[in-house]
Amino acid sequence: MSDALAPGSTVGILGGGQLGRMLALAAARLGLKTHVFDPDPRAPAGEVATLATTAAYDDHAALVAFGNSVDVITFEFENIPTTALDLLDSLAPIRPTREALRISQDRVIEKKFLQSIGLMTAPFAEVDNAEDLTAATTSIGLPAILKTRRFGYDGKGQARISSENDVPQALAAMRGAPAVLEGFVRFDREISVIAARGTDGAVACYDPGENVHKNGILHSTTIPAALSPSQAQDAVLLAGRILNALDYIGVLGVELFVTPESLIVNEIAPRVHNSGHWTEAACTIDQFEQHIRAVAGWPLGDGSRHSDAMMLNLIGKDIAAVETTSDARVHHYGKAEARPGRKMGHITRISPKT
Amino acid sequence: MSDALAPGSTVGILGGGQLGRMLALAAARLGLKTHVFDPDPRAPAGEVATLATTAAYDDHAALVAFGNSVDVITFEFENIPTTALDLLDSLAPIRPTREALRISQDRVIEKKFLQSIGLMTAPFAEVDNAEDLTAATTSIGLPAILKTRRFGYDGKGQARISSENDVPQALAAMRGAPAVLEGFVRFDREISVIAARGTDGAVACYDPGENVHKNGILHSTTIPAALSPSQAQDAVLLAGRILNALDYIGVLGVELFVTPESLIVNEIAPRVHNSGHWTEAACTIDQFEQHIRAVAGWPLGDGSRHSDAMMLNLIGKDIAAVETTSDARVHHYGKAEARPGRKMGHITRISPKT
Repeated sequence: MSDALAPGSTVGILGGGQLGRMLALAAARLGLKTHVFDPDPRAPAGEVATLATTAAYDDHAALVAFGNSVDVITFEFENIPTTALDLLDSLAPIRPTREALRISQDRVIEKKFLQSIGLMTAPFAEVDNAEDLTAATTSIGLPAILKTRRFGYDGKGQARISSENDVPQALAAMRGAPAVLEGFVRFDREISVIAARGTDGAVACYDPGENVHKNGILHSTTIPAALSPSQAQDAVLLAGRILNALDYIGVLGVELFVTPESLIVNEIAPRVHNSGHWTEAACTIDQFEQHIRAVAGWPLGDGSRHSDAMMLNLIGKDIAAVETTSDARVHHYGKAEARPGRKMGHITRISPKT
Repeated sequence: MSDALAPGSTVGILGGGQLGRMLALAAARLGLKTHVFDPDPRAPAGEVATLATTAAYDDHAALVAFGNSVDVITFEFENIPTTALDLLDSLAPIRPTREALRISQDRVIEKKFLQSIGLMTAPFAEVDNAEDLTAATTSIGLPAILKTRRFGYDGKGQARISSENDVPQALAAMRGAPAVLEGFVRFDREISVIAARGTDGAVACYDPGENVHKNGILHSTTIPAALSPSQAQDAVLLAGRILNALDYIGVLGVELFVTPESLIVNEIAPRVHNSGHWTEAACTIDQFEQHIRAVAGWPLGDGSRHSDAMMLNLIGKDIAAVETTSDARVHHYGKAEARPGRKMGHITRISPKT
């Protein structure tokens, strides 16, 4: 606890989207100030943070001023330019560590890391050109999914290959970026574990949630996931292994495919995660507060849930549901424009714990 | 719903203390912007509101600019100068109505109002001078409590009169302000009902909580209060009667004394209330969101609780408990200086619903 930030200290947040906004709201409840850095003046987090800087990630002066104004730095997305982190590193501690960022920024590095600590991933092969892809489809088999190694989110930068006919179009969709071919996993369900680790090494996990995606975007998360007790325990232990291997500080999202035989790690996200939004309604201490507690050096909170829950994302025009919903926890991200495919808010309904 | 504010609209909040801060945080979750008006540049709500104006309540220009920048005006305390309200009245709707403010600003007017709608209050008598007080102690009997009619809070402006010997000191404590002598009620317990009414006339009440005061300041609220089913129902009906009589919009706090025979209204507060802070941890929609929903013209939320709860105020140096509490919902108000008697934060522990 020696390095715990006192209330009144400032948490710097790189990225001012809805995750940054919800982190800022959680920090405020703990009496901590926040300073959000984002290139977009309309970034949702700006209007609830104590301070907001609007600047590009290559704006040296703005980064230095930001770094000097905060007591710790965290982030709401993993694709922060390395040069910005190089500069900030000397100004305030960055939590989670840069190693977690480095690994999660590249699907190939991430999968190799996961395998190195004994976890299962989908079969994969690096694809830099047409020859690689031909070899990869042969070795891995079809169907498979071609994904850019970096900068993918919400299904962007992905192309499914069902037959040889799909190969040219899939390769073109990568736009020359380094890619990875991932074998298709025949899973029963997709789940995720939202896990946290404190500066003292303590680990706390929320109960696994079951995710349904639509068009590559998370649609809903249901808690508890339909798992056997041993599957649920394995999922939590697996998340703990990742946290400890990375000497992680903060909240980490782990997406898993559940097959009859095993748990296969789909991907990890070194930040609060959309599939953990349900914790806001069903836990005393939600993932946003848990993350702030961890990066501020406070003891982690109890992650137990008091209720079962179902979180529904509100995408694009779905957001209109917020105003007439009176039997659920609603969260509107304050974005002005409800573009198709844009995450605008979410709703969580709770029910007595089973 | 015709007058419901769209997300992105601005709720003006008069007063930037912890109640204003928690209202601003709740509004943010609904995608509403906030503009806080407070004379103190360090007001806790300022750093989480979208906009903050630091100005006195007699600053004509600042009030006009504030009134023109918001879509609806609400408040976190009842002692707002009438002149400020006169000015703001023409610029944006004030919710709750000024009539609720007028009544609750004066203990005598409030008690007369409560009696006029058939509710019980402690016996009382107006006291403007020593002669009044002598007459009042005779008619009401001792012990009794002398209170200023206006501007009292957290036990300030009150003096207990146990015997004739206490009279001079009690009168001096009023500093010449109009006062009221209240007969001492021998109650079993103190409870409060946090009730809300929407623009459509719908009423929603939270379950009554049981309050313990120390040194005139709320110490704890426990839910559920130890009441018979009929007492609990009476308390809720009584709160609804007050809301309807005032054509109220927003959250109202009703403090009650419970005696074996009856429920006696101690006082009402036309705002979110300290004894409703537990709703943050034990309800899907807390009193702050409920108030914002009401004043924004949204449908009221379901006020049912998922858990039992105990809220503990953190006064002065008690706030140090926030940093080591990991099994409760904590709320730190962001105040820099932990002066004795100052409300610095609160903690709510929940337990399975009984």
